[in-house]
Amino acid sequence: MTDFQGYKCSICGMEYLPVQSIYTCPKDGGNLDVILDYKQIRQKYKIEDITSISQPSLWRYLPLLPVADPQAEGTPMGAAGWTPLFKPGVLAKDLGLEELWIKDEGRNPTASFKDRASSVVVARAMGIGAKVVVTASTGNAGAALAGMAAAMNQKAVIFAPKTAPPAKVAQLLVYGAQVILVDGNYDSAFDLTIEAANEFGWYCRNTGYNPFTAEGKKTAALEIWETILHPNPQLKKPLCVFVSVGDGNIISGIHKGFKDLLELGWMEQMPRIFGVQSEKSAAVANAYFAGTEKITPVQATTIADSISVDLPRDGVRAVRAARDTGGAYILVEDETIIRAIAELGKVGIFAEPAGSTAYAGLQKAVKDGTIQNDDPVVVINTGSGLKDIRSAMQSVKEAPIIEPSMAALKKHLWK
Amino acid sequence: MTDFQGYKCSICGMEYLPVQSIYTCPKDGGNLDVILDYKQIRQKYKIEDITSISQPSLWRYLPLLPVADPQAEGTPMGAAGWTPLFKPGVLAKDLGLEELWIKDEGRNPTASFKDRASSVVVARAMGIGAKVVVTASTGNAGAALAGMAAAMNQKAVIFAPKTAPPAKVAQLLVYGAQVILVDGNYDSAFDLTIEAANEFGWYCRNTGYNPFTAEGKKTAALEIWETILHPNPQLKKPLCVFVSVGDGNIISGIHKGFKDLLELGWMEQMPRIFGVQSEKSAAVANAYFAGTEKITPVQATTIADSISVDLPRDGVRAVRAARDTGGAYILVEDETIIRAIAELGKVGIFAEPAGSTAYAGLQKAVKDGTIQNDDPVVVINTGSGLKDIRSAMQSVKEAPIIEPSMAALKKHLWK
Repeated sequence: MTDFQGYKCSICGMEYLPVQSIYTCPKDGGNLDVILDYKQIRQKYKIEDITSISQPSLWRYLPLLPVADPQAEGTPMGAAGWTPLFKPGVLAKDLGLEELWIKDEGRNPTASFKDRASSVVVARAMGIGAKVVVTASTGNAGAALAGMAAAMNQKAVIFAPKTAPPAKVAQLLVYGAQVILVDGNYDSAFDLTIEAANEFGWYCRNTGYNPFTAEGKKTAALEIWETILHPNPQLKKPLCVFVSVGDGNIISGIHKGFKDLLELGWMEQMPRIFGVQSEKSAAVANAYFAGTEKITPVQATTIADSISVDLPRDGVRAVRAARDTGGAYILVEDETIIRAIAELGKVGIFAEPAGSTAYAGLQKAVKDGTIQNDDPVVVINTGSGLKDIRSAMQSVKEAPIIEPSMAALKKHLWK
Repeated sequence: MTDFQGYKCSICGMEYLPVQSIYTCPKDGGNLDVILDYKQIRQKYKIEDITSISQPSLWRYLPLLPVADPQAEGTPMGAAGWTPLFKPGVLAKDLGLEELWIKDEGRNPTASFKDRASSVVVARAMGIGAKVVVTASTGNAGAALAGMAAAMNQKAVIFAPKTAPPAKVAQLLVYGAQVILVDGNYDSAFDLTIEAANEFGWYCRNTGYNPFTAEGKKTAALEIWETILHPNPQLKKPLCVFVSVGDGNIISGIHKGFKDLLELGWMEQMPRIFGVQSEKSAAVANAYFAGTEKITPVQATTIADSISVDLPRDGVRAVRAARDTGGAYILVEDETIIRAIAELGKVGIFAEPAGSTAYAGLQKAVKDGTIQNDDPVVVINTGSGLKDIRSAMQSVKEAPIIEPSMAALKKHLWK
């Protein structure tokens, strides 16, 4: 933790000491970037000090995280991150790509990418002595906070709109969180969370508000570096990273991870980051295409609920993640998002719609020439398909019902 | 593969060469145990040759498996097994136990223990050149076979009763399996599977029929040995392993794994194996309590669908697993199975009912003195709670709905 220096506002550039702020910029409300003492880290660690760590979790990156060791070993929080990296030859061939990897974040403890953010936030809460962590969430972020808090025997409170699907609420409750359903939309839950955190001294995890979520999410970039870039120095073109975008915090976190690695001199070339949004939830992409950092809210209606966001809370940094790395934004139709679930399924990867969105974006980018066949690509599946069975059912044809006889079977085989 | 010698019938003891049989004993239909050349293995490998392998999957145990290397690296099948082991202090304290571990099989690629069996069966199918793998299943086994087959680009056919929940069928279809819904019960699907496999030359995975499923499942025992027994030689009492029982193949597989380790001289003391069944699906436990190996079918109605079995296909070996190791069978009520979901949830582990059943069994065993406070215990959670959200919803109280105001919030906190 000694290498955590403070924050820098992503809007005005003002720097703050750790004690001067907790959440967003006191001046303009901008998202804060965590600043580490890169010189210190460089002096203390070599690349091999990281790559030789045997810990199969995101805690292998503790030297690059602004939190003290939460001593999470032997708990689900100690088993977050270090997700499998697949190299699906069948899909690479379909797309005509020479190098294609898929990183499966559905294998995290609560089955989504959000465990990365929640783990680091819970560690931070422990570090500052907060007794309760709280978040507004309709889905994966809430489940992740509830699960990681339960793992560390910490109290969690989750605010969700009363319209949240009962199945998603059930997972929060099973983890023992106090769940409050708010008679209003996500924004009113978000605001009430902040008010309650301030009044009760709770630590607030809200995405696009708490600067530590991006620090947790950056660990995915560190893993991509450690498992793709570092062992493959022969890659001639920059790695292209495809990720779906909702509130913009995952893509910002990934960008931050790569920026940290560049600062440390541990990586030579910034990967190109491609943000994929549904046409029906395109606030960040709209700003990117308009050449602005000003995010205009939309009325999001995409089937990919984890990235259905009216007002992205981390939109500015999300625009920059693509713009500043030679990446781009890509818009896809909900129909192709659903179809991409079955595409990934055929190599044994079961994605939720927000996860298959990134793959749908890659398909489009290959088709229109944005991605060429010698571009090395990694696609991030942000969550397990078990989180949204209803969408999965839309991606496939119904199975036939037959009499239990060989004659009936023969009529239906491979039709 | 050179160390795979053949089979031995678990009923009549007759031995067969690998070419003499594929599934059950030709004489009496008994389940076949795979026989390895333990002497050869002992000569070729030391314990350290295994424990020094870095591969975080069940394929680290290839030297003890009767299959050739399926070259599954970079696929979901290459990421099966080597599931996290938790040490939940809160639950150990609740139960008054000195040493309690929980092994979370929900973290497997298709989110259940069954990936172990299906991985090894798919590897075997590749080894014998079978073009199609087939199974009868209403749930996890089918999903596991579909997922592992997809990972290796192999065709899978799944037969399920037409009453199978559409959500479970969706997962099979997403993995690209050909799904045939049979207008009949599980038994008629089972029989049709065998008939089709024989006629079309498909390789049949049916549980309690294919001898390789238990070989896959034994890898959980190998992991328990490698992560608990081997690093903790100071344990003074035998390890007690709690696992839920449906058709009896998981408990048989775990028993086989420990027997292999004893044969190799890599483990000194056989762990005590405790099988837990719901009172509403108790065919194996009934035989155990009656002191017989004769399994009498029941009409199973438990809410824990993965262990709801009328006629266990691996019942004889399942009875022996507890009887021959100084373990026991334990019967629990469905109400305690449901309650145990929330108990595990509070330490961040989300289990399906068949998974929480094992923990409910431990609670009962502690209460009635079967397990004492200095008995070291490991509980196996066989599947993710995301597989059965409906049961999860029954384990918790509904969340309150409030107006978005601090006044309303204060009325509902921690009530």
